[in-house]
Amino acid sequence: MKIGYLGPDGTFSHTAALRFAKEGNHETVQYQSIPELAAAAQNLSVDAAVLPIENSLEGGVNTTLDCLAFDCDLKITGEILLQVHQNLLSNSEKIIKIYSHPQPVGQCGRYLAKNFPSVPIVFTNSTAEAAILAQKEEGAAAIGSDTLADIYGLKIVAKDIEDANTNTTRFVVAQRDGKPDALADKTSIVFSVSDTPGALFKMLSVFDIFEINLVKIESRPAKTVLGEYIFFVDISGSAENDNIKMALETVRYKSTFFKVLGSYKEDKSGV
Amino acid sequence: MKIGYLGPDGTFSHTAALRFAKEGNHETVQYQSIPELAAAAQNLSVDAAVLPIENSLEGGVNTTLDCLAFDCDLKITGEILLQVHQNLLSNSEKIIKIYSHPQPVGQCGRYLAKNFPSVPIVFTNSTAEAAILAQKEEGAAAIGSDTLADIYGLKIVAKDIEDANTNTTRFVVAQRDGKPDALADKTSIVFSVSDTPGALFKMLSVFDIFEINLVKIESRPAKTVLGEYIFFVDISGSAENDNIKMALETVRYKSTFFKVLGSYKEDKSGV
Repeated sequence: MKIGYLGPDGTFSHTAALRFAKEGNHETVQYQSIPELAAAAQNLSVDAAVLPIENSLEGGVNTTLDCLAFDCDLKITGEILLQVHQNLLSNSEKIIKIYSHPQPVGQCGRYLAKNFPSVPIVFTNSTAEAAILAQKEEGAAAIGSDTLADIYGLKIVAKDIEDANTNTTRFVVAQRDGKPDALADKTSIVFSVSDTPGALFKMLSVFDIFEINLVKIESRPAKTVLGEYIFFVDISGSAENDNIKMALETVRYKSTFFKVLGSYKEDKSGV
Repeated sequence: MKIGYLGPDGTFSHTAALRFAKEGNHETVQYQSIPELAAAAQNLSVDAAVLPIENSLEGGVNTTLDCLAFDCDLKITGEILLQVHQNLLSNSEKIIKIYSHPQPVGQCGRYLAKNFPSVPIVFTNSTAEAAILAQKEEGAAAIGSDTLADIYGLKIVAKDIEDANTNTTRFVVAQRDGKPDALADKTSIVFSVSDTPGALFKMLSVFDIFEINLVKIESRPAKTVLGEYIFFVDISGSAENDNIKMALETVRYKSTFFKVLGSYKEDKSGV
């Protein structure tokens, strides 16, 4: 099986893809952006895409959420939880510029404000790109994993600089013709509610009636007018289960936009 | 009154601040980042900060939401809705690099994928910084407002390149000792719910019992462990109203984290 992930080498996506690929002895293929990666899974250039979907400090990864909801028709068939540690990487004594992907900047906001309040931060497309740029430039540093220090020949100036001890990124495995397997115990859906008083409350009451546990709810703009939202909801159980099937039929009937994003096995690796 | 906003000149924040300042004949002061701006309002270097809080295409502005929830103690006393149009700005014939703040890249994702699929995008801290960089460099373009074209001497290569007709950014006016005025008809709160089945549903049922209309709900990570969230909720009515006061006391009692972010007059300028 061919597994696509977000490169370059040494990104957290790369680590997640390697962990997933190892289990099934799969081949991995690198892509430069989330839309390209999702499109590759859609047109079967790869059999599965490993997509970052949320981080415990920075929240949802908008591009992935929008891809899954609007732009492609992939099913989530698995998830990978990855404990994330950020480091300040540089070969310079005095740091006058920091390269970083926007997500780590959010995760390390307090560290940066305290230690580098007036040092300019230049955004990059990935943590690996930041490391590549920092390696080439006197006075520059990058934020990223310790793996990047090894790959791109940088020193770890400061270790574990994230604002909280528990910094976890969740990845999903998305496939075009993905079907839930017998072990699936978690289902992701997305729906919109009409802009009427109590509409979300009524929709959540469906899950209450069917005694279904919501493990996650996240809002994103519906991209129509300000104040209209779609909701990404994860529930316990498989969409193949009769009780859940009936509940989801009700949600589908009552919503203006509805999609089952997939049923899959929850990653309980204790991250 | 001194009003702080996110610079440099010509950002959408600048336009929003000027619109607010004009109404009261106020002075405006420029800041370089959202945390600096919020801190200035906190220590009364300015009387009010104009903070971008959400966009109809790209969703919540994480830094502002986190500042209001965790990092400072400001009250929202007003809001400004601004219709946003993005443009591709450049003086070059052939564009080989695009400078942009991450938000406009999200708002114009489809346009960029269609017209500049392999042109590298370099992230900047503001739309104005993008314009300043593009102006200096042969082959470079910036994404931003038509105002930036005037200020920094750039041509509009493509007009209104955002992915949807309705692209609105909502700003809030935040003040340290802000009190709701008699015209306040909207209240923003933030709360967390315990990680038990149906906890959010039960919390929303409080608003149902008191017949309070939720105009917005948005989740953000609680920054503790993955899967715990705080919810930003906007409701119709002022926190000074007895019915709402009682409802909010109930929410406060039942939640592990609770803050009234402020009551203020809704911007109904028809944006």
